[in-house]
Amino acid sequence: MTTNKQRLIVQKYGGTSVGSPERIREVAKRVARYRNRGDSIVVVLSAMSGETNKLVALINELNPHGSSREKDVVLSTGEQVTIGLLSLALEALDCPAKSYTGTQARLMTDSAFCKARISKIDGSKIQADINAGKVVVVAGFQGVDSEGNITTLGRGGSDTTAVALAVALGADECQIYTDVDGVYTTDPRMVPEAKHIPKLALEEMLEMASQGSKVLQIRAVEFAHKYNMPIRVLSSFDDGDDGKSTLVTREEDIMEEVLVRGVAFNKDEAQLTITGVPDQPGVAFKILGDISSANIEIDMIVQNIATAHNGTDGTTDFTFTVHRNDYDQAMKILNNTGEKLGAKNVSGDDKIAKVSIIGGGMRSHAGVATDMFKALADENINIHMISTSEIKVSVVVDEKYLELAVRSLHEAFDLDKA
Amino acid sequence: MTTNKQRLIVQKYGGTSVGSPERIREVAKRVARYRNRGDSIVVVLSAMSGETNKLVALINELNPHGSSREKDVVLSTGEQVTIGLLSLALEALDCPAKSYTGTQARLMTDSAFCKARISKIDGSKIQADINAGKVVVVAGFQGVDSEGNITTLGRGGSDTTAVALAVALGADECQIYTDVDGVYTTDPRMVPEAKHIPKLALEEMLEMASQGSKVLQIRAVEFAHKYNMPIRVLSSFDDGDDGKSTLVTREEDIMEEVLVRGVAFNKDEAQLTITGVPDQPGVAFKILGDISSANIEIDMIVQNIATAHNGTDGTTDFTFTVHRNDYDQAMKILNNTGEKLGAKNVSGDDKIAKVSIIGGGMRSHAGVATDMFKALADENINIHMISTSEIKVSVVVDEKYLELAVRSLHEAFDLDKA
Repeated sequence: MTTNKQRLIVQKYGGTSVGSPERIREVAKRVARYRNRGDSIVVVLSAMSGETNKLVALINELNPHGSSREKDVVLSTGEQVTIGLLSLALEALDCPAKSYTGTQARLMTDSAFCKARISKIDGSKIQADINAGKVVVVAGFQGVDSEGNITTLGRGGSDTTAVALAVALGADECQIYTDVDGVYTTDPRMVPEAKHIPKLALEEMLEMASQGSKVLQIRAVEFAHKYNMPIRVLSSFDDGDDGKSTLVTREEDIMEEVLVRGVAFNKDEAQLTITGVPDQPGVAFKILGDISSANIEIDMIVQNIATAHNGTDGTTDFTFTVHRNDYDQAMKILNNTGEKLGAKNVSGDDKIAKVSIIGGGMRSHAGVATDMFKALADENINIHMISTSEIKVSVVVDEKYLELAVRSLHEAFDLDKA
Repeated sequence: MTTNKQRLIVQKYGGTSVGSPERIREVAKRVARYRNRGDSIVVVLSAMSGETNKLVALINELNPHGSSREKDVVLSTGEQVTIGLLSLALEALDCPAKSYTGTQARLMTDSAFCKARISKIDGSKIQADINAGKVVVVAGFQGVDSEGNITTLGRGGSDTTAVALAVALGADECQIYTDVDGVYTTDPRMVPEAKHIPKLALEEMLEMASQGSKVLQIRAVEFAHKYNMPIRVLSSFDDGDDGKSTLVTREEDIMEEVLVRGVAFNKDEAQLTITGVPDQPGVAFKILGDISSANIEIDMIVQNIATAHNGTDGTTDFTFTVHRNDYDQAMKILNNTGEKLGAKNVSGDDKIAKVSIIGGGMRSHAGVATDMFKALADENINIHMISTSEIKVSVVVDEKYLELAVRSLHEAFDLDKA
């Protein structure tokens, strides 16, 4: 961050960072400071905190089941307000600025209103303004389809806008300003010994985000990962530019590959189990198909064949997790399925938590999972489910053990050491 | 309004008519009712009442002197919210609807941000939606320039949007819903005997609007007059469709041409006088040029040559009116001009009021002005200035006589009679 070469930086500020005129002025000061030392800056903004919720309330009062196209027309106004206001604040600092709505930025999406996917960005107009020395301020969360309809990108949309714009413009770095100064080995509110991580791999961040770390939205990290765009997470509440930050970058750029980078967790899931199902081809589809058809997302899936209590009766057990909000509906569906399939039993538990250890070093190092299970066993924590990927091991435990599990894993893998 | 022929009607609802979700639902019901009896409806909306002021406050807090382009980006969001919400409310009544921002409606304007003029409307997309049986809901007050920048039309913009759209689409009628049920012979809050006017000529409405009647914005009436688009003024607070209304239409369509249609007035002006100015060619320009250069609009102008107190000294007196908000600045400029020109005296008065009588019948009938002066003289009301047009006579009087003047003129011209 101290190079003298002129860089193109995309900076994204979230809702709390632009939550009031005073905060918008602070953002303007930071942007102007970057620009005055020679960087080219493109800013991506969320709506003022609370605004989107206010708009959602109006929508729900009038017609919660109305067309998504019209909802997006309403929802996209929040960001349009902040881009105009920040541009005005920049002008007040003699910093030339120009705002772009999603439509004006030619941020093309499909027509899946409320959850549109970016298909293309024509950055030529923005590039011309950058070349003319202007700060370009783009509305996050929104785009336009080929018919000129306004679309929104859904949850995490503004982060995704920022990364996509950074990719389209060939930026050197995409900076995401939040209310924390980067990524930690685990949530410092749960484990005060949690250590700040100055640098980690995009793959690791991807697993951290999908396992419950709220710092970056997973869609944005996926995008950055796909196009190798370095992301830097910073706090918009730090006054100077020498505050802490986390650079999320290509694995090749990470010197020290650690075994376990951090411990992620979430309490948003519930677990459902169906036992004694006749073990025939297609049984997994029969069980999970009905759940998926109801638009319920399934996270972890475990199938046990021929466990002790099944004996040799040719049946199998199935356990999977869904979002806790979908638990009741999923139980209803699974009970129906159980009856149809002649299952022995259907049960569930929404007092569970998922704990994951994540680290790029796992690829080349065996035994990490075993170390994890041992650390949990030492605390007498029972494991319901296990799921692994190349650089992650996740377990489901009783919710009441969550904090103990996170703390003991954090310590077991020496994450509290410098 | 009881014909069975399918008509295309543009309906415009102001800020109080869409000021809350409940009010928006009422508007939706009315629109659906019109549509269900076979009319094609295009709706033009203002922002929810209070919203635009809130946005202006945010702008002023950050940078009141910032670029008008960015102000328009912020200001245009208010209408974007209401068009989405009304479309959702219409859908809830099983009435298919589609919203259009100014950009989407291809409502093309020049690039005079904050006070843009409409240059062209490409109504083909809207027409296609109308043909498909949809109610089209368009954001008032906003347009787009040839570069894709968002523009706003300034004061009275939504009325103008409605009339311009009605013209572009060849609508049968442009309905303007307000909080009053039409035009009255004068303001009923001042003269309880004021009578509702069911029908008047566009020319008359034009003079009423420019003389202070607040029912319709003058720009919209000018537009309607130019393109002969009938405007109907109605109250959005009337429940049924058989409430009172005022149809403003072509003079040829008015059966009974009356001498005096109504009495208009305003208290927004101040009067400035410069006396004893050497009467040379170009003196009017010297006096008013400096005022105009300061972007102060001048309304009435009266020049008296060789009045009694000037004798034969070859000087002249000048009196003109400006908006009361500009009074102090105009006085400062006029004092400077007076010194430069060697004027005898500069004086002013911001406690004045303008009262006008308006009627298409004046064209073919002499003596109306005399009757007006007599009525005022009978009440001992002194006249400061007089200005006339084909169908209007305006006088400036002391503000304290305003109510008396309006009442006596209303009575003198029998406007209180059925």
